Amino acid sequence: MKIGFLGLGNMGAPMAHNLLKAGHALVVFDINLTAVSSLTDAGAAAAESPAAVAGHDVDMIITMLPAAAHVKSVYLGESGLLAAVRKGVMLADCSTIDPHTAREIADIASKQGNPMIDAPVSGGTGGAAAGTLTFMVGGTDAGFSAAKPVLEAMGRKIVHCGPSGNGQVAKVANNMLLGISMAGAAEAMTLGVSLGMDAKILADIINTSTGRCWSTEVCNPYPGALETAPAARGYTGGFGCDLMLKDMGLAIEAARSVKRPVILGAVAQQLYQTLSLQGHGGEDFSAVVKLYSERQTGNPA
Amino acid sequence: MKIGFLGLGNMGAPMAHNLLKAGHALVVFDINLTAVSSLTDAGAAAAESPAAVAGHDVDMIITMLPAAAHVKSVYLGESGLLAAVRKGVMLADCSTIDPHTAREIADIASKQGNPMIDAPVSGGTGGAAAGTLTFMVGGTDAGFSAAKPVLEAMGRKIVHCGPSGNGQVAKVANNMLLGISMAGAAEAMTLGVSLGMDAKILADIINTSTGRCWSTEVCNPYPGALETAPAARGYTGGFGCDLMLKDMGLAIEAARSVKRPVILGAVAQQLYQTLSLQGHGGEDFSAVVKLYSERQTGNPA
Amino acid sequence: MKIGFLGLGNMGAPMAHNLLKAGHALVVFDINLTAVSSLTDAGAAAAESPAAVAGHDVDMIITMLPAAAHVKSVYLGESGLLAAVRKGVMLADCSTIDPHTAREIADIASKQGNPMIDAPVSGGTGGAAAGTLTFMVGGTDAGFSAAKPVLEAMGRKIVHCGPSGNGQVAKVANNMLLGISMAGAAEAMTLGVSLGMDAKILADIINTSTGRCWSTEVCNPYPGALETAPAARGYTGGFGCDLMLKDMGLAIEAARSVKRPVILGAVAQQLYQTLSLQGHGGEDFSAVVKLYSERQTGNPA
Amino acid sequence: MKIGFLGLGNMGAPMAHNLLKAGHALVVFDINLTAVSSLTDAGAAAAESPAAVAGHDVDMIITMLPAAAHVKSVYLGESGLLAAVRKGVMLADCSTIDPHTAREIADIASKQGNPMIDAPVSGGTGGAAAGTLTFMVGGTDAGFSAAKPVLEAMGRKIVHCGPSGNGQVAKVANNMLLGISMAGAAEAMTLGVSLGMDAKILADIINTSTGRCWSTEVCNPYPGALETAPAARGYTGGFGCDLMLKDMGLAIEAARSVKRPVILGAVAQQLYQTLSLQGHGGEDFSAVVKLYSERQTGNPA
Repeated sequence: MKIGFLGLGNMGAPMAHNLLKAGHALVVFDINLTAVSSLTDAGAAAAESPAAVAGHDVDMIITMLPAAAHVKSVYLGESGLLAAVRKGVMLADCSTIDPHTAREIADIASKQGNPMIDAPVSGGTGGAAAGTLTFMVGGTDAGFSAAKPVLEAMGRKIVHCGPSGNGQVAKVANNMLLGISMAGAAEAMTLGVSLGMDAKILADIINTSTGRCWSTEVCNPYPGALETAPAARGYTGGFGCDLMLKDMGLAIEAARSVKRPVILGAVAQQLYQTLSLQGHGGEDFSAVVKLYSERQTGNPA
Repeated sequence: MKIGFLGLGNMGAPMAHNLLKAGHALVVFDINLTAVSSLTDAGAAAAESPAAVAGHDVDMIITMLPAAAHVKSVYLGESGLLAAVRKGVMLADCSTIDPHTAREIADIASKQGNPMIDAPVSGGTGGAAAGTLTFMVGGTDAGFSAAKPVLEAMGRKIVHCGPSGNGQVAKVANNMLLGISMAGAAEAMTLGVSLGMDAKILADIINTSTGRCWSTEVCNPYPGALETAPAARGYTGGFGCDLMLKDMGLAIEAARSVKRPVILGAVAQQLYQTLSLQGHGGEDFSAVVKLYSERQTGNPA
Repeated sequence: MKIGFLGLGNMGAPMAHNLLKAGHALVVFDINLTAVSSLTDAGAAAAESPAAVAGHDVDMIITMLPAAAHVKSVYLGESGLLAAVRKGVMLADCSTIDPHTAREIADIASKQGNPMIDAPVSGGTGGAAAGTLTFMVGGTDAGFSAAKPVLEAMGRKIVHCGPSGNGQVAKVANNMLLGISMAGAAEAMTLGVSLGMDAKILADIINTSTGRCWSTEVCNPYPGALETAPAARGYTGGFGCDLMLKDMGLAIEAARSVKRPVILGAVAQQLYQTLSLQGHGGEDFSAVVKLYSERQTGNPA
Repeated sequence: MKIGFLGLGNMGAPMAHNLLKAGHALVVFDINLTAVSSLTDAGAAAAESPAAVAGHDVDMIITMLPAAAHVKSVYLGESGLLAAVRKGVMLADCSTIDPHTAREIADIASKQGNPMIDAPVSGGTGGAAAGTLTFMVGGTDAGFSAAKPVLEAMGRKIVHCGPSGNGQVAKVANNMLLGISMAGAAEAMTLGVSLGMDAKILADIINTSTGRCWSTEVCNPYPGALETAPAARGYTGGFGCDLMLKDMGLAIEAARSVKRPVILGAVAQQLYQTLSLQGHGGEDFSAVVKLYSERQTGNPA
């Protein structure tokens, strides 16, 4: 297949490389020309604008952008995709954005004859490089079936979450719960260790009991509990605190849009905000455990 | 073995029956004489006071009481166990109480020659009846080894959590995290469904992703997500909201004793308090999901 | 003076009437023609678009709009004010919006020769009708001095908060604290009454002690504490819960923009969200006290 | 009058001195003999135990103790007051304890013929020394009237809060609201200053608007906002963070006893707990503003 790919950042670039490796022809676009070079060196063609990508004779276009504003601009802007793409070309937005914007754009696209799916990912830059991402897909059955083989070149698990926008819904709901349970794990582990337990033993007990969660089993935040966790390597790698902050912000905004409270979600977001303020925004989000330790305080003025 | 057993409530009675079934001789005590009759009918002897239990020639004494005040009274009171028990008899308190009281009593007991373990359980009344409880044990290696065969008549998993009090520490840390992740699961599931997802599909996605936890996998709070969960039977059975409230209270008190904040823990406790105020204290704690639904409000005055 | 006025809603219409009463000539615009008629009946001229208002020979233009999106559109849109207004005309936006948008628009305006102030108000529809609003003004000293006499026709207190955007900053900071202290007052009053105190006596004690705040003194949420409060008339009138929800949302967004946590602010917002979900969004925000009462619960599915 | 006084700590000692200055005869008791000497040097008699105080021919006994456990022991213990005091002697407990214990002891006292009031104070060590404390009194009308002239030697405002225990209720309700509004003030002030406002101007605006509270007017937490606040002298003096932590703990326990949630109260308590963990437990509680500043973080392990 001939595929357009827009957005060659930390996630998009390795995803595009995996498409090339799988034998697809690629036309890429990014405002960062160094990122573009890396792909053209590997055999991709380059285009000068989103509209120019659509001008190529592509079968499908994939976007991987930082936030909703970029997605809106790339799809709906004056030299954007929708104004230039020919009828029938499939569109897949892999960015993590709010469900409402996702639905709004997909609706416009489908009305002009372009089936569109939202397909945000989890798995981080490691998963993007290894081609082991999880794609949470919102769209029609036909759209899902058509996109699946292409997405499989970049990911291991491709899940259909229901109609348009539901990929984003699944992602924000999952990640909000992740943010809550990680902070909860940090509190429980710190509590137990402060009361005299060995971190490893406590983690083992929780992991075979009702408190167990991904955050205690796979990414335990307490140093010494798990050798393979970011906590064992100074909270490097993993899923950055500032990215968690962004995703929790999307969840809370989405909750407001349907007038639902998310009380623990809102508190957890502020915990990550506190962590970020202290200069840990680039560390793995499990560094939230640092909020429960003795530390130096600054002065507000 | 000849075993004394004090506290024949909803948990203690079936535990005592399991000890009888395993072939142990039993001397029981409770202020509720109907509960005592049920055990004497099954072959146990009865004693008139805690001290009287200790007066029998028992090898071990097990207590299963509602709260720290009862445990203190039964062990340290005037006609209590420690004043009457002969040197060398092993003591096991299976009540869920704060770690400090557990350590204080165990310390007094061991100084007078009675090895003592704290061994709170999880698994509920169902696990007590079926003999499938988990015991979280704090005490010496010798104490753990000696008690383990007896506890195995009542439970399936007997875990050594470290020195005296650590059984209680493990339990409060686990249950606080459980209380947080259940409320988080309620928020995430409600958010996703309100935004248009099917409850079952959302649960499936979370359960294979990073948000997964016991509360989404085994006890999903959202109706329709899991047929075997309390949510599928009107939030009956399971682990009562008021019991969760008690355990979270122990966790927060324990956190204060070591001067550690538990921010999400404190909020989650208040959510269960709100649920209890609304008359749901006797329902499974996953009924916390009701806080996120439209409902009638009362008037404060 | 000849003044353009855009936005004739519940707040804007009475404000515009007060300008007419003060002897100013008015050119008004709103998409709601009934609202326009009310003003033209009283002597104002009407314009067909924001640009048309600017086309009149006005000395100053005042806007009073629901949210940032409307403000952006009215000022920056194709037939918007900035494209049509002649150099030197003073601009005053009385809408409550985020400080960043306020600064962005004021910056564009001032660069093209139009001094602009942000001047959000407090005092509600009652204050708008009575001409007793408080204006919190952000802008230059010159801009403040020039606008003050005009604003005095609509309000009693005109406060200069510093450079452009600071009017919005003052308003969101004040209202976030208001939202927190009202919910805190609801908790403290409910706690005291539940423990046996008379609501009026408790309010009197707090009001002469360190817990006192506007929410206990002027708008006490507990029924029976204060005869002049919305609580004494079924939570009608006053400052609507959904408006508080909007302002707290602006505060939390503004906090994110400067990477500061607002932990109590985030929790309080979710409390008002819960209240709104229960159907009380149109009541005075002091109805938040209802969250602490026994009530019927709904079922999520 | 001849008055017994037990508890000569930072609060009790200056209170006792003020009673001497007012011309009362005093019999004092404390386990700290240095504290006792300071009073006997000033003319008081000393007793060797609570019971011995009661043995003197006193008309009234006042207690000022750290916590409920001490109060219980001093009144109900084996050589305690109630066992030794003659019928008719009035009792006044000025300690800050939970309402239930206060009511329990007053009930026992009144049944044996000793009218008892609870009379916790606010005003701190400064108010104790200056004789300007506020007394919140729970008890009968007769008890209040009888005690009032004595309390006036130590305080400026003596408020009758209703029947026994209500003095404690008023105090915990007020102080919980104080703890919430101070943390809210810290968030609002930090938010406004971070967004570009001058601290003093922001405080002035809030203090004439709806966000105003004792915490912004009298004890503004932000450096530079108020010259007379603890924030202007390094958060020294004032009301210690650890004392606020104790009072909020009493409020939350009291809320649990009547099954009422206190959601903001619980979060605010954890904020003071976080502050205390960082080593600021001895500073004025307005130092909570430090939580919202950039700072160094420690490592949990």
